[in-house]
Amino acid sequence: MIAEPVTALLRDASHVVLATHIHPDGDALGSLFGLADILEAQGKNVFCYLEEPVSHLYNFLPTITRASSDLDAALQFARQAKDSGNTVVAVALDCGDADRLGAAKEQLLSITPFIVIDHHRGHRKFGDHLWLESGCSSTGEMVYELAEELGAKVSVDAAFCLYVALVTDTGSFRYESTSPRTLRIAADLVETGVKPDEVAERVYDNYTLARLRLMELVLATLAVHADGRIALIRATADMFERCGATSDDVEGFINYPRSLASVQVAGFVKETSEGTVSVSLRAKGQVDVATVAAGFGGGGHKNAAGFRLTGKSVAEVQNLVLDALKRVI
Amino acid sequence: MIAEPVTALLRDASHVVLATHIHPDGDALGSLFGLADILEAQGKNVFCYLEEPVSHLYNFLPTITRASSDLDAALQFARQAKDSGNTVVAVALDCGDADRLGAAKEQLLSITPFIVIDHHRGHRKFGDHLWLESGCSSTGEMVYELAEELGAKVSVDAAFCLYVALVTDTGSFRYESTSPRTLRIAADLVETGVKPDEVAERVYDNYTLARLRLMELVLATLAVHADGRIALIRATADMFERCGATSDDVEGFINYPRSLASVQVAGFVKETSEGTVSVSLRAKGQVDVATVAAGFGGGGHKNAAGFRLTGKSVAEVQNLVLDALKRVI
Repeated sequence: MIAEPVTALLRDASHVVLATHIHPDGDALGSLFGLADILEAQGKNVFCYLEEPVSHLYNFLPTITRASSDLDAALQFARQAKDSGNTVVAVALDCGDADRLGAAKEQLLSITPFIVIDHHRGHRKFGDHLWLESGCSSTGEMVYELAEELGAKVSVDAAFCLYVALVTDTGSFRYESTSPRTLRIAADLVETGVKPDEVAERVYDNYTLARLRLMELVLATLAVHADGRIALIRATADMFERCGATSDDVEGFINYPRSLASVQVAGFVKETSEGTVSVSLRAKGQVDVATVAAGFGGGGHKNAAGFRLTGKSVAEVQNLVLDALKRVI
Repeated sequence: MIAEPVTALLRDASHVVLATHIHPDGDALGSLFGLADILEAQGKNVFCYLEEPVSHLYNFLPTITRASSDLDAALQFARQAKDSGNTVVAVALDCGDADRLGAAKEQLLSITPFIVIDHHRGHRKFGDHLWLESGCSSTGEMVYELAEELGAKVSVDAAFCLYVALVTDTGSFRYESTSPRTLRIAADLVETGVKPDEVAERVYDNYTLARLRLMELVLATLAVHADGRIALIRATADMFERCGATSDDVEGFINYPRSLASVQVAGFVKETSEGTVSVSLRAKGQVDVATVAAGFGGGGHKNAAGFRLTGKSVAEVQNLVLDALKRVI
């Protein structure tokens, strides 16, 4: 159920500024470019603001050239439209809190009315009008519902963007948030002309050689404990350097130790820039890793949590994690 | 559209013998156990014949205990039912040709009428009544359609089996065969009570430690050629032995070289038992690996093909493959 007056505001607006969170992922970018296309097809003027250029991981999305990092241009677009008597709205997509808007937070929020469309659990309210569906698989799913409510035609390009949003935020329809509604929207998008194999190839077959080299080194660190119930891997700054890898390249590595049949808790200890060690934890079944992460000042969900420590080596952090995990297993 | 008289025969039967192909995968087992549950809920007597015990990869499927490898018992079940004046049918699920029924082919085919339900391209007709949907994602999808046609209630157990069939035969809704109909059936199954995250955990998080150890060794063999357009990996018998790995453990390894953004053709050269080297090839875009495989006496599709050679070392085969791929790239 779309929160009022979101649909009415968007229906009446002639000018729309769209924004999303910093370091945008597939759902952020897919829902942003999808909504942009949908609104433009309705004859509206749309400004897509992104703090950074689109990551190489998502540069296959259609219409990314419409994104701009020119904040002054975004503000001028809104001001000029208002001055000319047009109706302007701003929309933040997939933002769990205002800080996720990035450095331009205050200036973006000055464009009113400011609508927020989000699906994150633990969302912290901001803006003028919030439409929150915290059980929903993705913001992309919400944008599709909005398009239906607006009676908008969803083009193949828009459908492709929204399909990427759904696929990336559900791990290819594998996460708990995948609902019958998610799958039916995916069906509609495929009917519109999206090719699931093409999306999968774009989203999943875009790895760097550095990633595979690093994967080899990281797998060599695999250590199992507690009769195979705990599995840990690690990546040091030196390993990143030897492979020429970046933090983008280790996305999803935690799934390797997690994939062991015997494992109840998996952990990935990685050295990030400036002497910081970050830890990702994943649990299956009844183990609660949110509590473990909280013990180190971090947080997350029962099945997926993490934290960061400074001033300790990767090996020291790995030992601390192992001790903590042994106590909850 | 279900081929006549399949629905009528199944509606009228009181006794049904179900079989599938040897070395059954998720679609074979999911559609077999799913259909067994659906037919039993309609008050029919069902015999599930499997040549081998269910692989550890699928031993989480509900109701696998109903499977039997006792061929005499299967034949007796059919004979006794007929002798008592009951209506008997046999159904082969997911079998592309009669030989895929295994050693008991002739005896199974002696149970008549023999129905064949399959979705393989290049299906070779056998049995008395064929229902073939070669564009369909999976036999599991066809079984769901059959259940609808029979007006049968699909229990949570049956829905779980069919969801496993859909997920495994579409690579989690990533393959070209994923249609709007596939996704809508998946939605119905989730509505019935299937949890997508539970299925994903069962299907994808059941790896052995030997697999991850072997993955490390295999990634170390990664070689890229032709400006990154060709990527090859290999696994020798010695590597399998050092890790205690079996052929089950390398399923999907070809996806690692394939996942490189630059790659147009990926190959996996692996030494199987008795001095045989088998080669899997995967192509993206316009490259045709079926022709390459055919040059070595193998076959397959444009994007996925393979072949086997004997009397040559892994290194020799890898060189032959590389030369052949360089000619088509």
